[in-house]
Amino acid sequence: MGTAPSVERITPRSEDYSRWYTDVILHARLADYSPVKGCMVIRPNGYALWENMQRILDGMFKETGHVNAYFPLFIPESFMKKEAEHVEGFAPECAVVTHGGGEKLEEPLYVRPTSETIIWSMYKKWIMSYRDLPILINQWCNVVRWEKRTRLFLRTTEFLWQEGHTAHATAEEAEAEARQMLEIYRKFVEDYLAIPVITGLKTESEKFAGAIRTYSIEAMMQDKKALQAGTSHYLGENFARAFDVKFQDKDGQVKYVHATSWGVSTRLIGALVMTHGDDNGLILPPRIAPLQLVIVPIWKETNRDVVLPFSVQVYQQLKGRFTVRLDDREQYKPGYKFAEWEIQGVPLRIEIGPRDVNNQQVTLVRRDTREKIPCPVDQAVEKVEQLLEVVQKDLFLRALEMRRNNTFRIDDYTEFKEIMEKRGGFVEAHWCGSEECEARVKEETKATIRNIPFDRQPEKGRCIVCGQPSEGRVVFARAY
Amino acid sequence: MGTAPSVERITPRSEDYSRWYTDVILHARLADYSPVKGCMVIRPNGYALWENMQRILDGMFKETGHVNAYFPLFIPESFMKKEAEHVEGFAPECAVVTHGGGEKLEEPLYVRPTSETIIWSMYKKWIMSYRDLPILINQWCNVVRWEKRTRLFLRTTEFLWQEGHTAHATAEEAEAEARQMLEIYRKFVEDYLAIPVITGLKTESEKFAGAIRTYSIEAMMQDKKALQAGTSHYLGENFARAFDVKFQDKDGQVKYVHATSWGVSTRLIGALVMTHGDDNGLILPPRIAPLQLVIVPIWKETNRDVVLPFSVQVYQQLKGRFTVRLDDREQYKPGYKFAEWEIQGVPLRIEIGPRDVNNQQVTLVRRDTREKIPCPVDQAVEKVEQLLEVVQKDLFLRALEMRRNNTFRIDDYTEFKEIMEKRGGFVEAHWCGSEECEARVKEETKATIRNIPFDRQPEKGRCIVCGQPSEGRVVFARAY
Repeated sequence: MGTAPSVERITPRSEDYSRWYTDVILHARLADYSPVKGCMVIRPNGYALWENMQRILDGMFKETGHVNAYFPLFIPESFMKKEAEHVEGFAPECAVVTHGGGEKLEEPLYVRPTSETIIWSMYKKWIMSYRDLPILINQWCNVVRWEKRTRLFLRTTEFLWQEGHTAHATAEEAEAEARQMLEIYRKFVEDYLAIPVITGLKTESEKFAGAIRTYSIEAMMQDKKALQAGTSHYLGENFARAFDVKFQDKDGQVKYVHATSWGVSTRLIGALVMTHGDDNGLILPPRIAPLQLVIVPIWKETNRDVVLPFSVQVYQQLKGRFTVRLDDREQYKPGYKFAEWEIQGVPLRIEIGPRDVNNQQVTLVRRDTREKIPCPVDQAVEKVEQLLEVVQKDLFLRALEMRRNNTFRIDDYTEFKEIMEKRGGFVEAHWCGSEECEARVKEETKATIRNIPFDRQPEKGRCIVCGQPSEGRVVFARAY
Repeated sequence: MGTAPSVERITPRSEDYSRWYTDVILHARLADYSPVKGCMVIRPNGYALWENMQRILDGMFKETGHVNAYFPLFIPESFMKKEAEHVEGFAPECAVVTHGGGEKLEEPLYVRPTSETIIWSMYKKWIMSYRDLPILINQWCNVVRWEKRTRLFLRTTEFLWQEGHTAHATAEEAEAEARQMLEIYRKFVEDYLAIPVITGLKTESEKFAGAIRTYSIEAMMQDKKALQAGTSHYLGENFARAFDVKFQDKDGQVKYVHATSWGVSTRLIGALVMTHGDDNGLILPPRIAPLQLVIVPIWKETNRDVVLPFSVQVYQQLKGRFTVRLDDREQYKPGYKFAEWEIQGVPLRIEIGPRDVNNQQVTLVRRDTREKIPCPVDQAVEKVEQLLEVVQKDLFLRALEMRRNNTFRIDDYTEFKEIMEKRGGFVEAHWCGSEECEARVKEETKATIRNIPFDRQPEKGRCIVCGQPSEGRVVFARAY
């Protein structure tokens, strides 16, 4: 559908990583630039990935008791201003509607950059008693944050995401919810996208505008930069106080409600591209790939009637069990088809030529390693099933190894700066906890503290900047 | 979740149909008013309905070769102006973004009221040859149309919908697509929502701004007014010419591309409410209901240990086969629970009291007729399955009968006016085809031509207004 895929050269990663990224997205037809500044079009190949992500995540949300709802796109200016830190963080990057129905509006409407304010104005109507709690609502929608420098999937003015907004009777319960949702993100990103992540707590200066604590999952891309792939916030009573949302508790006392919010976005598609792709294009993990395998028959005029029926038979065997396509297009040669499906990252290819028919076999080709594996046709189902699992696992392990090979424990600031400048990667270093040291590192190296890992070992040390005592290491990196 | 449902009185339909409608929506918690003028919040009960609609329709779209994509929310003003009729129809009801990122924009951005213009600007990039056709893209998204007088689900400033936008090499193929999609809408609305519809062609004055022909499905609500439940448009070359989208055909000639677009929206939820609901609340057809049946155990302190385990056993039998909930909440009495699930329209209720346990039976209660049906517990699965089918069918037949009883073949304009004024309903009448007669009827009776039915019989007659010859009847009604 649409223009035949370009088989023009993809810029190699070694030449220009950033151009490689854009080339892969355009050539794999995940997205395209739009005529609206900073906004992209998510093309069917990209949207199919998002649909798979939505389906899996939505199932995980529902299993943990969440329901979906939909709140307005527009937020009155006065609402944005009710939570001081929140408006300071978001107002400067908002799109503002000033006219509607041909008239100037009395109050400007902000296009939602996130929905805490509009949602908490509704929770005020819905929450009166402890019986009304918890509220566990999620929303799938578009949001807008004005961006000066944009990048396909990673940073665009409009993007798609989900935002969970929950209300709880106690701080403990809200805290547990925030942690639970981060764990769901970790599980999804590691088990389905095959991207290893570090879970942890954001520092004060990197937390969400309006949160008490922000948790994040952080991944390493192939250029050794970090990408924040999801966040979950414990918001305390901040929004409840801003919108005056109180409830009568079991003990008869009137209390403020505790909040969380959490979200992941189409940015995850960018993470997928940058974690697994190679110089031939996209590489998709089988558990998230819209198409898991493609069958490419290889025929000539003389043996078409032998190869094609055999291929159809193999296709019939596999469909229903896997998402599979038989590429029997007449107008393209096998070599062209191979390149096309490689660009699009289909995990497995099955080649069937006349010799395969004679031997009653098929040839499986892994997208990730390009390894060719012959297989008797009557064992194709088992072999495909097994290979898809192996590919899924290998992609994760390869990414994990890449991260391990590029993670350093450093105690000397000169060395730290050298790594950030010349080599890149994650640096585990001691930090005293002060915003000043954090800011200095950022200014001098462009590296930020990605998070304070949950699983870090207690370790006495000295801040890499100021030498003050520290209780453990945090993860520094340059980030997207 | 959220505040316990209000069991306040729902205004009876006979007293005030419009208030009844709003009461049902608020009490069943399908939606709530938001603080943003003209915008509503779709609450979890309403959104669960929309999710079911999306899932079923999306499956039907994909079966017919369509794929999903996502285009920007914002449309540059200059794009809106490229198709003359389109801008005239939509610009006056648009929300306009004039500021972004703290600065005044060089060109105002319209929040999409529909996406033809932005999508065709992309199709220009993607279509060069006949090989690139057809493009069969659908988008699930929010749109904004500024409304002065709003109504929950039926007419709100922002609403959710799907919009299909297809591109074809020939007029015939595009026409067939537009008709195919209308047929999908008919099938979905009749088979799943149990709402009978009339399929047909819109008149020139009622067609979509920018279309050559608009097709619609029209339903009768319980107050005998019509509701347009879905539309499909053959757009000809209008948008291809506006955005200069041409392709090289097989014959080597360069031609304009032919277009269709088609959509249904959250308005369908309003149609559901108004077609099937009664004075006790919502009535949901089993094939679209998020919850198909609820089990309400009836116990006292003395027999709780008998009734509850039996109820759990029945629940275990049914779950997996149906969407079912066991309502074992301790804090509410059975009568309260009955009323709550009736308001929310759950198609079947299973009551289990101590006597039922003794007799090894359950009592099924239909939401639509309130009929009580005892059933041996070991036949519960079959009985529930059968009853859900019967309810689905009966709801459709009841609505069809209602429409038949309120559809009149009228040849006299005085009589026509009397019906519109005093009785309401659909009037099948002859019409000469002139916009003047159509406009006069609208002005004098508030009735419009809903459509020219596909299945109308050829019949010589005279226009009900001017007496000029007519070839067949059209459907007049007052409409939402």
